[in-house]
Amino acid sequence: MRTVPVSLGDRGYQIKIGGGLLDRLGEECARLELGARCVIVSDSNVMPRYGPAARKALTSRGFDCGLITVPAGETAKSLKTVQVAYDQLAAARLERKSFIVALGGGVVGDMAGFLAATYLRGIPFVQAPTTLLAQVDSSVGGKVGVNLKAGKNLVGAFYQPRLVLCDLNTLGTLPEREFRAGLAEVIKYGIIYDAGLFRRLEREMTRLLGRDPDVLTAVIARCCQIKAEVVRQDETESGPRAILNFGHTIGHALEAISGYGKYLHGEAISLGQVGAARLSTRLLDLPAAAAARIEVLLARAGLPTSVSLSARRRQALIAAMKLDKKVSAGEVKFVLARHLGRVEYGQSVPQSSLEEAVKSLAVPSLPGNQSSSLR
Amino acid sequence: MRTVPVSLGDRGYQIKIGGGLLDRLGEECARLELGARCVIVSDSNVMPRYGPAARKALTSRGFDCGLITVPAGETAKSLKTVQVAYDQLAAARLERKSFIVALGGGVVGDMAGFLAATYLRGIPFVQAPTTLLAQVDSSVGGKVGVNLKAGKNLVGAFYQPRLVLCDLNTLGTLPEREFRAGLAEVIKYGIIYDAGLFRRLEREMTRLLGRDPDVLTAVIARCCQIKAEVVRQDETESGPRAILNFGHTIGHALEAISGYGKYLHGEAISLGQVGAARLSTRLLDLPAAAAARIEVLLARAGLPTSVSLSARRRQALIAAMKLDKKVSAGEVKFVLARHLGRVEYGQSVPQSSLEEAVKSLAVPSLPGNQSSSLR
Repeated sequence: MRTVPVSLGDRGYQIKIGGGLLDRLGEECARLELGARCVIVSDSNVMPRYGPAARKALTSRGFDCGLITVPAGETAKSLKTVQVAYDQLAAARLERKSFIVALGGGVVGDMAGFLAATYLRGIPFVQAPTTLLAQVDSSVGGKVGVNLKAGKNLVGAFYQPRLVLCDLNTLGTLPEREFRAGLAEVIKYGIIYDAGLFRRLEREMTRLLGRDPDVLTAVIARCCQIKAEVVRQDETESGPRAILNFGHTIGHALEAISGYGKYLHGEAISLGQVGAARLSTRLLDLPAAAAARIEVLLARAGLPTSVSLSARRRQALIAAMKLDKKVSAGEVKFVLARHLGRVEYGQSVPQSSLEEAVKSLAVPSLPGNQSSSLR
Repeated sequence: MRTVPVSLGDRGYQIKIGGGLLDRLGEECARLELGARCVIVSDSNVMPRYGPAARKALTSRGFDCGLITVPAGETAKSLKTVQVAYDQLAAARLERKSFIVALGGGVVGDMAGFLAATYLRGIPFVQAPTTLLAQVDSSVGGKVGVNLKAGKNLVGAFYQPRLVLCDLNTLGTLPEREFRAGLAEVIKYGIIYDAGLFRRLEREMTRLLGRDPDVLTAVIARCCQIKAEVVRQDETESGPRAILNFGHTIGHALEAISGYGKYLHGEAISLGQVGAARLSTRLLDLPAAAAARIEVLLARAGLPTSVSLSARRRQALIAAMKLDKKVSAGEVKFVLARHLGRVEYGQSVPQSSLEEAVKSLAVPSLPGNQSSSLR
């Protein structure tokens, strides 16, 4: 087992990574000195598979444990689902020291975290992420929230979990498409913070795709370390934390105009990173070879690197970007790469460059790249 | 104008109290270095009356100011109203530095504060309370939230405003019943923290009911000072802040079983304080004479001090208390008074005493007390 600390003073916590950790959920929660009552929030895919074991681990340590099952998929990240869940929390008689366990992927973690942040003005919560994406990204750092029709994550809070427990065994049953989607965020950490990690991913992509436990443990731990370090520097995203959004401005907008659920988050972010890399070559002198390595690595991970959009959809995409939370004084700000391992946030992008980059997504720049053959 | 600081480090702010302050809203907001865009949230009673002046004050200082009008009354403190308002905030293109002005009573302040706490994971907000209750209580201290069917304020956050602007002129048009309801919280500050304030209220109740500006300014400023001091000691209600809930355990439950809106909050809290004072004589040796002075003062303020409930409604009331956020390990905890100016929180109350106290609310202990003639 690897342990990664997140240093945030009073709000600090540990990320634990290893095989079979769900069986230790009760033991780990017992250390946190929480109340006796808890609720596991999970979705209709994950709850039948891992809910019983998680609940047993909690009840065997004396916790009184309820279950709330939400629909699977991005649509669960809605105020409607939250409202139903609030009523269930009230019916379960949760108190201020009671806690919520978010068991599932990013959608469950974000939605259950928002519940925890707002029920009784905030109760403790534990993240038990079961997807690669959630383990390396969404479960760490305290961003919780739900979507509005107008955009993704427009409602939410910064609210830290008390513990993140990444059980690698849960990755064993993850569908191939979801696993590959998680790799989009893994590759992102290499681009934004650690050229060594990027090179490692180039070397070990085959073993990683084979879900080799040693490679997985090391890579997940390194991603969590990077995220923890970035979050420590800027918990509430007043500045530097924005680097985590490399590829997300275009990616989020793509999800928004497709009606959440068509693309997996990681797939949209893969396309967003291709767009951001191409903008970076133009605006920050990122070497074309580096942009090409990014595209190749995303393609080797089985992620889409091109998508053809009609002129009308391209306009919709650009309009959606302007609802991004990082918009300031009406201007969309991008995270762009200077070289592998180093990005700059708050970059202005002229409208013409943006239009060109979005248009260029139709064409894979490299032979053999994976086109968006999903639809 | 009186200024009361709220000392909370990074999250500190000022409360300003005086006549005509709404006209200075733009000037005061300009000092806070916020974004150029804002939205005034108010209700269908207050918006027509004070919205235009508030907006003019903001636009004259260069702010781009939208308006969101919610229905008047406690029902606006619902997830449904919040959801509609989120969509309006998105349509108004609010950004992270944009801000919300809550213009109205406690309902508007709580609901608009919750919007601000959660929209884009938190944007700045300014409280411009227009009722006595909101000026002395709900606008200060950062408790924001909405109600669920299962109980009041079950969803919310601790989220501090950037400024509280109490314009005494707005009290001039406050209906008598609402003004008197605000006095329930004013009297509470005397009971929980300041026997001198309590005696002052005994001496000056007639001038206060006449809305004498000098008495009003001094009393509101003192209440805000007390609240600021209590909040400074315990921002997120881990302990001492609970003293502010004197009278609220029974009061909230009464509101819940009556379907919010039948009692004004202050009326329910008046009855709750009578119940808590009677429990205090039994369980904390509060002198009977002090409990009598509390009832007399509430009655002189024109507040209800007795209510007759059927056996079934008494049971419903006690059940509703068990949903209170201050419940711990299934036990309802009360704030009880030891003497005027001094209360203790976290007090256990035996079920039998609780039942007796609720039953005794049917009978005014003093001749001439105001019975609950509201229904």
